[in-house]
Amino acid sequence: MQRGARLDRRIDFYFDFSSPYSYVANEWVGALAARHGRRVRRHAILLGVTFQAAELKSPVSYPIKREYSVRDFARSARFEGLPYAMPASFPIPTQNAARVFWWLADTRGDEAAAAWATAGLRAVFTRGEPIGERDTLRALAAGHGLDPDEAERVWNDPAWKERLKRANEQAIAAGVFGAPFFVVDGEPFWGNDRKPQIERWLASGPF
Amino acid sequence: MQRGARLDRRIDFYFDFSSPYSYVANEWVGALAARHGRRVRRHAILLGVTFQAAELKSPVSYPIKREYSVRDFARSARFEGLPYAMPASFPIPTQNAARVFWWLADTRGDEAAAAWATAGLRAVFTRGEPIGERDTLRALAAGHGLDPDEAERVWNDPAWKERLKRANEQAIAAGVFGAPFFVVDGEPFWGNDRKPQIERWLASGPF
Repeated sequence: MQRGARLDRRIDFYFDFSSPYSYVANEWVGALAARHGRRVRRHAILLGVTFQAAELKSPVSYPIKREYSVRDFARSARFEGLPYAMPASFPIPTQNAARVFWWLADTRGDEAAAAWATAGLRAVFTRGEPIGERDTLRALAAGHGLDPDEAERVWNDPAWKERLKRANEQAIAAGVFGAPFFVVDGEPFWGNDRKPQIERWLASGPF
Repeated sequence: MQRGARLDRRIDFYFDFSSPYSYVANEWVGALAARHGRRVRRHAILLGVTFQAAELKSPVSYPIKREYSVRDFARSARFEGLPYAMPASFPIPTQNAARVFWWLADTRGDEAAAAWATAGLRAVFTRGEPIGERDTLRALAAGHGLDPDEAERVWNDPAWKERLKRANEQAIAAGVFGAPFFVVDGEPFWGNDRKPQIERWLASGPF
C-alpha cells in the first residue's frame, strides 16, 4: 500500500542548538511530517563547522544584518505562536549538547534524541539558558531525567566527540550549509521559511 | 474612514533587476497590497552596492550555496506558479535598467516605473535576456513602448546616474541589505519568503 510505503520515508532535519530558526522549525516539523505519514530523523550539527566548510559566516556576524536578524528571529517565532527569548550571549557553544544528542540517538533511538533536541532548543530560546556552560547543561540533563554525571562523561568522551565530528562531515557531504536544513526525498530545503514548500512537497510531490 | 486612511499607506518594495527572488515577489506584491488597500512604491537598487555596505556577498558567490540557490530560485518561482529561466551569465549588470526605472518613476509616476520593473524582471527571469547589454536593453525599451534612443540617453545621463546613487544610499539608510526587501509601517521584511508574515501584518497588524 502506498500509505504504508510512505511511512518508511523520512525527513532529515539538520539543526544546531544555537539556531533560533532551528528552534522554530523543530516545533512544527514533527506534526507536519506526521500529517503526511513521514517520520523525522534529526541531526544535531555545529553551524560553525558547516559555515567554515562553505566559507560562510553567521548572519549575526554582519552588523547591519544582525539587527534585522535578531528582530526576525523573534517575529518568526511569534508567527508560529511560539514563545521566544534570546540568550544574553549569542551564539552559544553547543558541542556538548550535540554530543549528548548523538549518544541518545545511537543508544536509545531517534525519539529519545528528538526529546533532548526539543528540551535543549526550548531551554535556549524560551528561557535564554546558556547551555554551553557546564552547570547549565548538567541541570538541563537532570531536569530531562538523565544522570548529569553520565551526561558529562558523554560530552567529554572522545568517542562521542568523534561521533559529532562524523555527523558534521556527513551533513557537509549532504550539502548542508546552514540550519535548519531539510532533505526530503533527496530534495534540499534550507530555512524555517521553506515550511510552505516542504508542506506542498509532502502533500503532492515534486513541483 | 479607516479604509480610506489605509489607502494612503504604502508598502516600500526594494528590488534589483538581477534578483530572482525579486522577480517572484514583484509578481505577488501588487495583488497582495491591493487586497489590503495598500499601494506599492517600488525602489530599483543595486544589490552590489548594498552588499558592499553591509559587507555581504551574493549567495551565488559561495560555491556550496550557489548550487542550492540556483535550485531554490526556480523552485520558489514554480511554487508561485510562475515560469522561470536563468540568464546564461548571472548576476547581470542592472544599473542601466535601474536608471530608466527612476527616470520613469520621477517623470511619469510609480505605475509607469512598476510596469518597467515588471517588464525587466520578466525579460531576465522568464526569457533569460541579458538586459545589461546595450542592444538587449534598447530592444526591451522599444518593446515596452519607449523610444530606445531616449532610454539610452537616460541611462548615460549623469543626472539619472546620480538619481540611482541616491536611491541606493536611501535604501542603505533604511536598513536594506538584500532584495527583495519590504518596509511596511516601518517594519522591515527581507526576502520573497516573508510573504506569509507580510500578509498577516497587512491583515491583522503587528504581531
